[in-house]
Amino acid sequence: MTRSAALNSNCHAIFLGTGTSTGVPVIGCDCPVCTSNDQRNQRLRSSLWLKIHGLSLLVDAGPDLRHQALRENIRSVDAVLYTHGHLDHVAGFDELRAFCWRRDRPLPIYANPGCMNTLQSMFAWAFSPNNTHGGYVKPDPHIVRDTFFIGPLRITPLPVFHGTVETNGYLFEAESQKKIAYIPDAKVIPNDTIALLQKCDILIIDALREQPHPTHLCVEETLSIIEQVQPQQAYLTHISHETNHQDLESRLPSNIKIAYDQLTISLDL
Amino acid sequence: MTRSAALNSNCHAIFLGTGTSTGVPVIGCDCPVCTSNDQRNQRLRSSLWLKIHGLSLLVDAGPDLRHQALRENIRSVDAVLYTHGHLDHVAGFDELRAFCWRRDRPLPIYANPGCMNTLQSMFAWAFSPNNTHGGYVKPDPHIVRDTFFIGPLRITPLPVFHGTVETNGYLFEAESQKKIAYIPDAKVIPNDTIALLQKCDILIIDALREQPHPTHLCVEETLSIIEQVQPQQAYLTHISHETNHQDLESRLPSNIKIAYDQLTISLDL
Repeated sequence: MTRSAALNSNCHAIFLGTGTSTGVPVIGCDCPVCTSNDQRNQRLRSSLWLKIHGLSLLVDAGPDLRHQALRENIRSVDAVLYTHGHLDHVAGFDELRAFCWRRDRPLPIYANPGCMNTLQSMFAWAFSPNNTHGGYVKPDPHIVRDTFFIGPLRITPLPVFHGTVETNGYLFEAESQKKIAYIPDAKVIPNDTIALLQKCDILIIDALREQPHPTHLCVEETLSIIEQVQPQQAYLTHISHETNHQDLESRLPSNIKIAYDQLTISLDL
Repeated sequence: MTRSAALNSNCHAIFLGTGTSTGVPVIGCDCPVCTSNDQRNQRLRSSLWLKIHGLSLLVDAGPDLRHQALRENIRSVDAVLYTHGHLDHVAGFDELRAFCWRRDRPLPIYANPGCMNTLQSMFAWAFSPNNTHGGYVKPDPHIVRDTFFIGPLRITPLPVFHGTVETNGYLFEAESQKKIAYIPDAKVIPNDTIALLQKCDILIIDALREQPHPTHLCVEETLSIIEQVQPQQAYLTHISHETNHQDLESRLPSNIKIAYDQLTISLDL
């Protein structure tokens, strides 16, 4: 679906970034992907923006958040959901100030216990009772383990294994909307999470590169997960500079695409 | 001096960013500066890149470091000097990985005790003895209070008052090179630091906006400092979206300019 058509729909997901921790291009790298003219090979750090039934939700707030928010003209955020505490997913915490200024209540943030602990130690000033300055981020922390709701949106954490870091994906469900699952960082998807994924129409999932990696799914492993889950459509994300978009996508089945920055998916049924 | 002429010189300083903590434009802001077409009003977070006698030094490594490094094609860094531990000056720590991969030794980082403490608690993994993964930042921390040397470059910390955060500027001196002082964040410059500044040919200094601010110098305060120091040339930096470059610069004396992103200063005598 084209971007303009998607934006006329009610609910959509926009990829703010689809890159791994360095982004692509990598600083100082002259490889064919880092020097490619194909815009789809230019990847900011992975993050998803969901516009669902009037809500504006960020999944992760990484180091490119300011750039991403300006590019997409994101003017308000109702909540941030964190997948895990790695810097490429949390380093944009301070940029959330701009969204806090325009709210009359603290900004709800959702994370598993390990990620919330990282946020609270890394950005301790924001969580302190002394954080009364009008200009700072005012978080309203919610530790999530089980299904929760934001407005009409039902959200289920999807625990996955990603090295030693406690990591969630998330499944989003709402009436008259495709069910979408987002798992940007994982090495192994446990059986209980595979069972939850059977519900999804759209699966967005880590596929770092073709070569195996100790803490991320490689393409072959990801294809095996997609085979088990059988979503209507799958998108690969969290892509390194070892993957050329065109080269890999031409070898994938038609129900599997490689996500790229600014790709917009309509979620309307 | 034009950018190309400056780059033909031996030693130069390049402004990687000249903005305040939000950068300019501010997310979601429609003010005349944030929507200006004048490129000099588009300000990434403040940072300076020094190329002096073959050395490549960063002063601060803020949230825009990846963008700044790609834009300027910074391929190696010999050291990072930190002014203080606010996020707009340290949040790019993880991006330093790209420079660590290409070194055979850890990357020297210089900071005052308070800032080093912030770095060590915020990015604890990097300072841990368990940080043996080849892909991560490997810092070589140096706490600095007094004059020190990097190669032929003599560097003097310039303590200043900036709210409650222990903050340094830095004075850089080398043979056959203009003496340059950089103080991006300050509210009050103590007399001892004013005395050190008497040596400088070029003074780059905080001038957040025209209206007074509790922790930053406003333009009138900055002009008073410049009057005391009498540098050959002064540049205002760490500029908010309340300042329109053209409007303010047209009212300044000719030895005072407003810095802008990518402005390049030759340091050769």
